[in-house]
Amino acid sequence: MISVAEATRLVFSTVGPLPAETVALPQAAGRVLREPLHADRDFPPFDRVAMDGIALRFAALEAGQRAFSIARTQLAGQPPLPLEEPQAAVEIMTGAALPAGTDTVIRYEDLVFTSEAGRRVAAVQVLPPAPGHNVHRRATDRRQGDLLLPAGTLLGPAELGVAATIGAGLVTVARRPRVAVVSTGDELVPIDQTPLPHQIRRSNGLMLQAAAQQAGAVAELFHFDDDPAALRQGLPPLLREFDAVLLSGGVSKGQADFLPAALQDAGAEQLFHEVRQRPGKPFWFGRHPAGAVVFALPGNPVSTFVNYYRYAAPWLRAVQQPALPMLPVFHAVLATDVVFRPALTHFLLVRLVSAPDGRLLAYPLDRTQNSGDLASLLLADGFVELPAERETFAVGEAVPVWRFRY
Amino acid sequence: MISVAEATRLVFSTVGPLPAETVALPQAAGRVLREPLHADRDFPPFDRVAMDGIALRFAALEAGQRAFSIARTQLAGQPPLPLEEPQAAVEIMTGAALPAGTDTVIRYEDLVFTSEAGRRVAAVQVLPPAPGHNVHRRATDRRQGDLLLPAGTLLGPAELGVAATIGAGLVTVARRPRVAVVSTGDELVPIDQTPLPHQIRRSNGLMLQAAAQQAGAVAELFHFDDDPAALRQGLPPLLREFDAVLLSGGVSKGQADFLPAALQDAGAEQLFHEVRQRPGKPFWFGRHPAGAVVFALPGNPVSTFVNYYRYAAPWLRAVQQPALPMLPVFHAVLATDVVFRPALTHFLLVRLVSAPDGRLLAYPLDRTQNSGDLASLLLADGFVELPAERETFAVGEAVPVWRFRY
Repeated sequence: MISVAEATRLVFSTVGPLPAETVALPQAAGRVLREPLHADRDFPPFDRVAMDGIALRFAALEAGQRAFSIARTQLAGQPPLPLEEPQAAVEIMTGAALPAGTDTVIRYEDLVFTSEAGRRVAAVQVLPPAPGHNVHRRATDRRQGDLLLPAGTLLGPAELGVAATIGAGLVTVARRPRVAVVSTGDELVPIDQTPLPHQIRRSNGLMLQAAAQQAGAVAELFHFDDDPAALRQGLPPLLREFDAVLLSGGVSKGQADFLPAALQDAGAEQLFHEVRQRPGKPFWFGRHPAGAVVFALPGNPVSTFVNYYRYAAPWLRAVQQPALPMLPVFHAVLATDVVFRPALTHFLLVRLVSAPDGRLLAYPLDRTQNSGDLASLLLADGFVELPAERETFAVGEAVPVWRFRY
Repeated sequence: MISVAEATRLVFSTVGPLPAETVALPQAAGRVLREPLHADRDFPPFDRVAMDGIALRFAALEAGQRAFSIARTQLAGQPPLPLEEPQAAVEIMTGAALPAGTDTVIRYEDLVFTSEAGRRVAAVQVLPPAPGHNVHRRATDRRQGDLLLPAGTLLGPAELGVAATIGAGLVTVARRPRVAVVSTGDELVPIDQTPLPHQIRRSNGLMLQAAAQQAGAVAELFHFDDDPAALRQGLPPLLREFDAVLLSGGVSKGQADFLPAALQDAGAEQLFHEVRQRPGKPFWFGRHPAGAVVFALPGNPVSTFVNYYRYAAPWLRAVQQPALPMLPVFHAVLATDVVFRPALTHFLLVRLVSAPDGRLLAYPLDRTQNSGDLASLLLADGFVELPAERETFAVGEAVPVWRFRY
């Protein structure tokens, strides 16, 4: 039996980057970039007018001029014609390119307009502090060639906006991980069947499929009975065709726990079996030389779920985004004392609350933790990880937290 | 000009629940339940064996018996036959229903097996503390008829697992909000075009589309030039056919800012125009009597993005899940002093870090905030909301935070 730290190390030793593929930008949301994207122009690409008003020469104001006749109006999207008369001004709109011959924008709020001899005249009421006022100068944000989005960036809404601005209509991203989700257990019947008194419906498969999809994977569902022949026939194609196989159940020491042997018969190499942790001690992990990594999770729903988030979800993220850390970057403060005597790392379900003082508080679930109690997951936002070396943890102590919800 | 609080109140005054629809459970991930789901049986539905080992009568142990002959083996999924011989035991696996005539399970680790006269015999090495040991008793988690998932629950992986367990193969959920994302501005060219020197590519539309999809919406993209005739023709169908119309640009006081008038010409009622906030003062909000709610966001990318997350994203969530709070439930601690003199609510872009002491720290972005600097969003995880009534905010102060990323 190995420690959680060693199990984590072994799981992450199997991380390799998935192949890249090219997709249209709108389809790249939630995907991870595999190429760096650079600024194709300066940002802004021109001296950009930042307020609606008039563009003029600051030197004219410095010389004491206050009233400016309006030579013409320039909207955003119109090519900027130079201002020919140095004493005049261009009425101009936000987003327009500043015309040559002007260097400063006075906003409408600081102007009074009158009409003189059929021509509009703007009188400046509030003097700008310096040339360049209300002008977003070319290249002040980024320069042409600057790296904007490094390879490895997760493409969210802001990243898509930046990629659109630089004309990246097609982008190279990591292929989505392909995951086979496999439930095992003769006691499990499909969702649409009425179970006999000693049977229950399959729930882990759908739960893991939804969770893997949240991690960016494409996940397909399979079910095998506790039957060595069925496993011998069913497992090899999954081990060949998928990036990861997530199993639940069949990994304990019981007489129907055929999975470890069946996985090895099918060519998977065991990297570990049993981890000093609760829940999820019987967790089996291995890899097939043809490619699939195998997370054989214990079958009790809470064990399945917690171990998926502790080991498989970070793996699914990491094969897309290899720079990600193995350990969570979130910490929470225990809202109660916790005592846990076994010499096991304890994954304790908690409800998370952001306190008005900015601390993230972790409230352990009241109900005695029971790895068969699927419904307890409804109340949990995640779990804290309490090290095996200690038995008591005091209210107010900060500990690493893994989150199911956001 | 109204306050942020009043703007929030008016935005939320337009929240009404979307119609319901029925979908297959696997397609319900990320959707919001519109019907309560109850336990169809007790949880567990039978006295469930929690460890691999043997099932026996605790009374036999109390009477001094230690060696038990194995009458038969029972796997999970097999109907439980009663134990006929009170001095014998049933070898039994996790997940099986406890046989009548037994009340306690001894795990393999606490047994030694021998063979006597061709029959296997298990000798108990460690006595259980009480009857019921290693048995997960029927109905200890939930009782038949208990409410498991109330209407209004967001269906994540755990909720799908619970719904599967109770056989909810079809579920009634809120329809996804239908959103039209509209960019305006003559200076904007499509992503796949090379802009002229005074033009830029469209980026807000794709950004808002991806963000609305993250909020559970189905979002379609549209673009209109700054042309009253194009708006007069294009807006009415959107106002009739969508639940929400998200516009960006065209709402300032400039000469090409035709949107407020065009929206009102198209039958939309203005609820407010201009909010005491930065960025995003020109935000226009209204509603069409036929249904669509209109968020006309300022066009500068940072304004668009921040105001989307401040007003539109909570609205999109709330029409699916009406019990949600209007205000964020997250707080962060300022990592630096902040001074902001205008009498405006300040939405300040921050990077968020979970500190090892469990506090969420908000680092204001270094770069002078500039609502035209789209690339600054790449560094931001969200924004803090600093009230208009104060000018100085001290390092260590906890303030409300809105998050873009998770």
